[in-house]
Amino acid sequence: MGIDLYGLSRVVGEQGVLPQRARRLDPSLPCREAELLIDVESLNIDAASFKQIKEDVGGSPERIAQRIQEIVRERGKMQNPVTGSGGMLIGRVKELGAQHPARGTLKVGDRIATLVSLTLTPLVIEEILAVHPEIDRVDIHGHALLFASGIYARLPEDMPDTLALAALDVCGAPALVARHVRPGMTVAVLGAGKSGALCLAQARRGLQGKGQLLALDISEKALAALSGIGLCDEALKVDATQGVDVMAAVHRATGGTLCDLVVNCASVGNTEMASILSVKDGGTVIFFSMATSFTSAALGAEGVGKDVTMLVGNGYVPGHADLTLELLRAEPALRKLFETRYV
Amino acid sequence: MGIDLYGLSRVVGEQGVLPQRARRLDPSLPCREAELLIDVESLNIDAASFKQIKEDVGGSPERIAQRIQEIVRERGKMQNPVTGSGGMLIGRVKELGAQHPARGTLKVGDRIATLVSLTLTPLVIEEILAVHPEIDRVDIHGHALLFASGIYARLPEDMPDTLALAALDVCGAPALVARHVRPGMTVAVLGAGKSGALCLAQARRGLQGKGQLLALDISEKALAALSGIGLCDEALKVDATQGVDVMAAVHRATGGTLCDLVVNCASVGNTEMASILSVKDGGTVIFFSMATSFTSAALGAEGVGKDVTMLVGNGYVPGHADLTLELLRAEPALRKLFETRYV
Ligand SMILES: NC(=O)c1ccc[n+]([C@@H]2O[C@H](COP(=O)([O-])OP(=O)(O)OC[C@H]3O[C@@H](n4cnc5c(N)ncnc54)[C@H](OP(=O)(O)O)[C@@H]3O)[C@@H](O)[C@H]2O)c1
Ligand SMILES: NC(=O)c1ccc[n+]([C@@H]2O[C@H](COP(=O)([O-])OP(=O)(O)OC[C@H]3O[C@@H](n4cnc5c(N)ncnc54)[C@H](OP(=O)(O)O)[C@@H]3O)[C@@H](O)[C@H]2O)c1
Repeated sequence: MGIDLYGLSRVVGEQGVLPQRARRLDPSLPCREAELLIDVESLNIDAASFKQIKEDVGGSPERIAQRIQEIVRERGKMQNPVTGSGGMLIGRVKELGAQHPARGTLKVGDRIATLVSLTLTPLVIEEILAVHPEIDRVDIHGHALLFASGIYARLPEDMPDTLALAALDVCGAPALVARHVRPGMTVAVLGAGKSGALCLAQARRGLQGKGQLLALDISEKALAALSGIGLCDEALKVDATQGVDVMAAVHRATGGTLCDLVVNCASVGNTEMASILSVKDGGTVIFFSMATSFTSAALGAEGVGKDVTMLVGNGYVPGHADLTLELLRAEPALRKLFETRYV
Repeated sequence: MGIDLYGLSRVVGEQGVLPQRARRLDPSLPCREAELLIDVESLNIDAASFKQIKEDVGGSPERIAQRIQEIVRERGKMQNPVTGSGGMLIGRVKELGAQHPARGTLKVGDRIATLVSLTLTPLVIEEILAVHPEIDRVDIHGHALLFASGIYARLPEDMPDTLALAALDVCGAPALVARHVRPGMTVAVLGAGKSGALCLAQARRGLQGKGQLLALDISEKALAALSGIGLCDEALKVDATQGVDVMAAVHRATGGTLCDLVVNCASVGNTEMASILSVKDGGTVIFFSMATSFTSAALGAEGVGKDVTMLVGNGYVPGHADLTLELLRAEPALRKLFETRYV
């Protein structure tokens, strides 16, 4: 089957299991031909995982560091055994395997962030240098390995890490929106938070001044911030869990035609019907919200007899990191919004 | 907002709630302008619901009948309060509201099956005529109302009800497959059961003799039945919960190119990775399995850096009933398979 795209050879003691599901990975050197070796600077631990560790060990930075070292020593990766979650890391390229696809794109010394989870990244911590509990980050000396299929982004030099990471965290959303927006469409973004703002900015570009762009959110403040910088044509204050109300608001705002595309970026559950009822027949919904229920979407569309194409928001779209950082550069008001709200 | 497409006016005592979620519907006559009135012959109760009732009341047909009547009297619809599920019904068109979209297509006296759930269908039972516990069916005298958005199928005269209903139960799947298959593609159907067989038959037509068609299932018997009637080019015995094994089998069968389209019709959970790993970059997965986890699909694709379009299988596609019955007519071997296995 050619090169070890998915890092199967790093799984210890289990056959046919992907690294994410594996109990233990082997993070030992040398770097193999389909891998990229990273000199790690810091780990951004998943919020739920960091909180669990903090509460479990009682909050002192030393004990947090100790617990993280224990987990990584035991599992060969930073996957919290209680929450199951990981995080991502920042570091510099130290070596590029002969078969790694980034050969030619990256060079030794480049600063990158991994965009795949720490739950599937072989990792060795030599030393923990500092713990920053207020931002779920730990600075370390150590190395990590990225598989040929593992996605990453080169960190830009024209913005702080924190800003870049906040945007990269959700960069799949605007990139997928870019594929689906055409000039003249009516587009609604449900949930005008971090990913919603990026999706709106991208949709506005795709519309090229033709069509209609709606932002929907329960928060007056979030909507005001977006309207203030012209990220939408109309802002509708709605509760996305109330499908019929949302449909009525979208019906009014679109003169009864409803939407060609609804992008669901809400952070709460039970928003499938609002999305489905707001598209016209033949339209499309992209679900990014991780609270989306597969069965609610499938049975919901059938129950109301709506011919709607429903997409599961894939966090990976080729070029998604560059596209998103480009958006922040091209739209100073969006960048400002990110600096104020999400950094 | 024009006509009452979704039957909101039939919901009792709750504002902005769709009939499916409502505690109670008002099934009273007369039939309203956006509705279709049905003279009901029989209810096909959802299997989980029927089982619950049977176990709860102790199995006697009289007590099952009594319990069903109680539920419908109380709720105005046949929605089991424990399982939450419904079923579908068969009956004859009695009246067509002036604004109902089937005016012109259906006429009074036509025999139809509703393809929307009983959980959203206003229903009155006047009398229960017979209970058939072996097929989860009850014959009744009574009426039901179908909203303008409610989907239905005219029952064909050239096949028994049981055969038509078995196929109509999953008719969304082949109809959505029809939209995505093009000649020359490599297509795999994961789970070669009832819906899988229809998807294979439809995909074979779409391929027009060009491309490759794979059937994957854990059951040797299911695969043998399909291969025997030429429904696939190759049958692969795999466990769809073992993503890496499935990928390896598909890799071998396709000479390393993997699939353009994977159709997931498996009846078990944890089959997301098998689907994602079996498509090539830029390919598509359609998830029909109701055991699909939204987050496993979204995070799974991101974790392996796969550019895959993932669709939530919508049970409604315009023309799906006709397309499916046409398939059975055009393919006698498929019809025979259905008669042997699913009736
Ligand atoms: N699959 C992917 O690739 C991908 C990519 C990006 C994002 N996502 C997912 O998308 C979701 C949103 O992410 P995010 O980072 O944009 O979150 P976020 O910044 O918290 O934004 C969510 C927005 O939804 C609003 N909201 C909450 N309850 C609502 C309701 N009942 N009705 C309408 N709006 C409501 C929030 O308003 P308040 O601030 O008032 O609560 C907030 O503005 C998450 O589940 C995330 O994991 C997935
Ligand atoms: N959204 C929609 O519109 C739509 C439409 C159609 C179907 N569906 C859904 O699709 C699913 C399948 O429906 P169906 O009626 O086709 O069911 P089915 O007839 O039971 O077929 C399922 C097939 O999956 C096989 N299977 C079970 N475990 C497996 C494993 N570990 N690996 C590989 N194959 C395995 C079964 O084999 P065995 O017989 O050996 O168990 C069976 O052949 C259901 O969840 C259904 O609700 C949804």
